[in-house]
Amino acid sequence: MALWYDEVFEDSLRCGLKVKRTLFSEQSAFQRVEIVETELLGKALALDGLWMTSQRDEKYYHELLVHPVMTTAPSIRRVLIIGGGDGGTAREVLRYPEVEHVDMVEIDGMVVQACKQFLPEIGSAWDDPRLNVVIDDGIKWSKRTDLEPYDVIIIDGSDPVGPAVGLFDLEFYQGCQNLLAKDGVFVTQSESPMLFRDVHLDMIGVMKKTFKNVHPYYGTVMIYPGGAWSWTYASNSVSPRDIIAERAAFVCEVTEIYNEDIHLGAFAVPNHIRRAL
Amino acid sequence: MALWYDEVFEDSLRCGLKVKRTLFSEQSAFQRVEIVETELLGKALALDGLWMTSQRDEKYYHELLVHPVMTTAPSIRRVLIIGGGDGGTAREVLRYPEVEHVDMVEIDGMVVQACKQFLPEIGSAWDDPRLNVVIDDGIKWSKRTDLEPYDVIIIDGSDPVGPAVGLFDLEFYQGCQNLLAKDGVFVTQSESPMLFRDVHLDMIGVMKKTFKNVHPYYGTVMIYPGGAWSWTYASNSVSPRDIIAERAAFVCEVTEIYNEDIHLGAFAVPNHIRRAL
Repeated sequence: MALWYDEVFEDSLRCGLKVKRTLFSEQSAFQRVEIVETELLGKALALDGLWMTSQRDEKYYHELLVHPVMTTAPSIRRVLIIGGGDGGTAREVLRYPEVEHVDMVEIDGMVVQACKQFLPEIGSAWDDPRLNVVIDDGIKWSKRTDLEPYDVIIIDGSDPVGPAVGLFDLEFYQGCQNLLAKDGVFVTQSESPMLFRDVHLDMIGVMKKTFKNVHPYYGTVMIYPGGAWSWTYASNSVSPRDIIAERAAFVCEVTEIYNEDIHLGAFAVPNHIRRAL
Repeated sequence: MALWYDEVFEDSLRCGLKVKRTLFSEQSAFQRVEIVETELLGKALALDGLWMTSQRDEKYYHELLVHPVMTTAPSIRRVLIIGGGDGGTAREVLRYPEVEHVDMVEIDGMVVQACKQFLPEIGSAWDDPRLNVVIDDGIKWSKRTDLEPYDVIIIDGSDPVGPAVGLFDLEFYQGCQNLLAKDGVFVTQSESPMLFRDVHLDMIGVMKKTFKNVHPYYGTVMIYPGGAWSWTYASNSVSPRDIIAERAAFVCEVTEIYNEDIHLGAFAVPNHIRRAL
């Protein structure tokens, strides 16, 4: 018999999916890792009881995280992904033939292993020879000084509790800046502007201490409670409007959500956030 | 003790809010009408167990429904609202001093009475002398031939089950077209493009049989499960890009979400919908 699996926010909101069966459920060194088969959204990944991604709605998240930076960065030869254990972000990055090398640094090897086995539909690019998966702490990685600069850095972490908490502070953003090429572009998921409004505003404020151009942008991800979801784009030289038309046209052949209108429209900032910035 | 109140979609998804107390709960001739006090979103209205609106997120719905038509219609002297029993739509319409007369035709008098008493924060314009509330069937109203044309028609109905089902068919849209001034503008909520994708696509298709310019647009409403929400804009002469800058600047002084960027950005259509249209 199918049972409800709920993500509960502050004991006041719950987002439940009926689960037909559990495919994977183990405690890693960092968190509870679960992959379940839901009735509505196909297979879904939850970490510590929070929905991360599902087959049916994952493109609303991964395409919006990846393509605004990838269509505007002058070069996209070398890409760093921190987090992204389900493989969806790497898949979207690797769509571009100009990409030569991707380091994907995920702290929790169990997430990668479980997703490879039970969610191959999302992480469909694991075998791409350009992808180098490293099981390591992204915060430690951000302090390295021996790396060739990255053209694009993408932070695909979970919420600012548990292992991802250090992905939300100034030191981390400064580390990423040091790893970034001079005209490189950085993006991070930046939480719900409604349920995590303070975290969202703080992140933008802290990023502005490091990067010249900082632009939050918005979309919807069905599996995340709180209506709108946000990402934040940062660069010292490039702006979200600098779309390289040919590259965007190429990727739009295969995207389900993303196109140039969606890209530009996503950067519209609601009045209540505008006034708070 | 607070209890969970869940909206359940097809026995596979639930969106629950913890409820501190029930302020109103009665069966009208049409539906179960409930107003509850939630822990997260303030007071909220539910009809037949489906969340309609809440204090904390209602502007994401009402501002997006109302302002794209109101800032683009050449004249906004006479406005018709069908549905909208909580009063939030009328409140947003009445912000404009150019509005001279609003007919609001709501089928269920109990919704209006309950919202007047228990949700006055949303319906804060009930006493405006320009507002004429009529308790009647909007479908019947759309067939009238004795009315002065409306400059703007706004359909603020519930889902296509129960009393609102007739608000989704060609005959109704043709009736509205007959009531509309030559360069008038029409808008309707048009469901979740993900959970009600077929209804959404059908509505656009049917509207295109009646109106020359038909444009779906998208946003997020936290209380509605299914990620994105949609509205559809229709006119025979005006397009959503024809923003009257002075009018938009005036209303943006007081809106929480809406501004010109949000307006234009909302009309970006995801690829999977573009391809289906």
